[in-house]
Amino acid sequence: MSNIRIGIVGYGNLGKGVELAIRCNPDTSLAFVATRRDPATVQLKTDNVPVYRYADLANHTADADVVIVCGGSATDLPQQTPELAKLFNVVDSFDTHARIPEHFAKVDAAAKESGHVAMISVGWDPGMFSLARLYGNCILPDGKDYTFWGKGVSQGHSDAIRRVNGVQDGKQYTVPIEAAMDAVRRGEQPELTTRQKHLRECYVVAKPDADRKQIEHDIKTMPNYFDEYDTVVHFISQEELNRDHAGIPHGGFVMRSGKSGENGEHKHLIEYSLKLDSNPEFTTNVLVAFARAAARLAAEKATGCKTVFDIAPAYLSPLSGEEIRAHLL
Amino acid sequence: MSNIRIGIVGYGNLGKGVELAIRCNPDTSLAFVATRRDPATVQLKTDNVPVYRYADLANHTADADVVIVCGGSATDLPQQTPELAKLFNVVDSFDTHARIPEHFAKVDAAAKESGHVAMISVGWDPGMFSLARLYGNCILPDGKDYTFWGKGVSQGHSDAIRRVNGVQDGKQYTVPIEAAMDAVRRGEQPELTTRQKHLRECYVVAKPDADRKQIEHDIKTMPNYFDEYDTVVHFISQEELNRDHAGIPHGGFVMRSGKSGENGEHKHLIEYSLKLDSNPEFTTNVLVAFARAAARLAAEKATGCKTVFDIAPAYLSPLSGEEIRAHLL
Repeated sequence: MSNIRIGIVGYGNLGKGVELAIRCNPDTSLAFVATRRDPATVQLKTDNVPVYRYADLANHTADADVVIVCGGSATDLPQQTPELAKLFNVVDSFDTHARIPEHFAKVDAAAKESGHVAMISVGWDPGMFSLARLYGNCILPDGKDYTFWGKGVSQGHSDAIRRVNGVQDGKQYTVPIEAAMDAVRRGEQPELTTRQKHLRECYVVAKPDADRKQIEHDIKTMPNYFDEYDTVVHFISQEELNRDHAGIPHGGFVMRSGKSGENGEHKHLIEYSLKLDSNPEFTTNVLVAFARAAARLAAEKATGCKTVFDIAPAYLSPLSGEEIRAHLL
Repeated sequence: MSNIRIGIVGYGNLGKGVELAIRCNPDTSLAFVATRRDPATVQLKTDNVPVYRYADLANHTADADVVIVCGGSATDLPQQTPELAKLFNVVDSFDTHARIPEHFAKVDAAAKESGHVAMISVGWDPGMFSLARLYGNCILPDGKDYTFWGKGVSQGHSDAIRRVNGVQDGKQYTVPIEAAMDAVRRGEQPELTTRQKHLRECYVVAKPDADRKQIEHDIKTMPNYFDEYDTVVHFISQEELNRDHAGIPHGGFVMRSGKSGENGEHKHLIEYSLKLDSNPEFTTNVLVAFARAAARLAAEKATGCKTVFDIAPAYLSPLSGEEIRAHLL
């Protein structure tokens, strides 16, 4: 398949990232963008690509080989992915880990009924980190898993800071703790508490007359978000926040520490890490690679819901089997 | 499949490693070991397992679901893997990168003719490192690959040292150069020469009256093995070599440095690394995980030659699809 026509549903950070990722993958093209907004208000970065209303998508099922659903996991994807799987082959980045089995079941039913391929939870975690965990578990069955996130911006924690009384703006970085990672790398297989694994670093712009001591206290004691962590709060100006913290970097580390030998005398460490300047753009690059696989599986008449675990890596590459064996094996 | 019966062909470092790896994978069992030596001279670590003559294997095709071919890539595997693929589902660790296409073609013909599954080039490089390269290329198409090996023992270079006039014994470590790795990690995408990527460190036991200056010169100027590298030669005693350099550690790093954004303004780094106390034992752990996949593919009536690129990761795990989605995704 030399031209995989990709439709984008939702034109926020992720949708825009998919549009850019398609430019780097010459065997793909942008078929359309669909939005729940008024299409006239959406200005694409690509010329001559139609913008459709979400509600009209049933009229455009022949226009795309696969649709990437670029909504949020809280409310958009649980509704849209099963809905769209009735019309198209779809890929999404559903990332609420605890609700994946439920999402899988709904999407699987819709995709099987309509004869489509649907891939869910594609991105880096879930996604590439999940693959690192699975490969690590299979290769070192006598071992232990560790996932560290960061240094990077947590959208959820940044939103939580901004809801605190007296806060004008703010950004939160999740920071993995070096000492914990080094203990894992030495093969010590430590038991680590939440506090021992990550630090939470907050950059906060206070409102003019706000009580900074109170803000700091309210952040540090916030249940679920901050109370189980060591949290550092820096007060800065809006100018500093805009200048120094405008990006959306992220990343992290998946480690598998294991043993082999007659008495477990040989230690092994597998480490997979990501360092990303743009969390959404990296995620969309992963989405486009898996969209290629979805289109290929659909061409082979596969149906139903898949995850990254179900995709033979060769399906992700624009190159032939001969080429990848000759150059990448 | 709750009991995958694995046969081992060849009982050197790799064969012994497979025997130990099977113990850590409760859904597998050791069916037999086959050898070209006199079976009476082979003492297994596992009780009540038969040792067969290689030449008699045609009589035992019903005894194993998959056979792991544990020979060397220079002469054993090019002959044995195609031969055995006529009798069994097979997995090997063929690692002569330049000859993989030729090996693939021969094994594929044999496996297709006899209706078996054959997996070649399974291990860590080729193998897990190949997967890291493929995933990295597909996710960051606008990028550059780097593979660094070590710190670890190179068997080929150690053998080369031991052939030098005046050398009694020796061991060679391949050492990746930190400064080069750091430049890659900073996203500089440097062009690196052979010399800039790896250092060769040799521990040499000289014969009593040997000319050490001459030995050092002969090693450092040896074509293909050492002349393109910076090489360090340490003279030590046989006792020191035996005490401090008896292990077979290895490892390395696969990095993909890439860009995204409208003008490539966002840098991304994917890094996959291994730190292994025992090179052969880690390799055999990989072999056993892929043997599980081979047995499953064979049960689905697949045939022909496969590589790690062709295996959906879920096939490597003893857990069900539901379990891996719930716990590892």
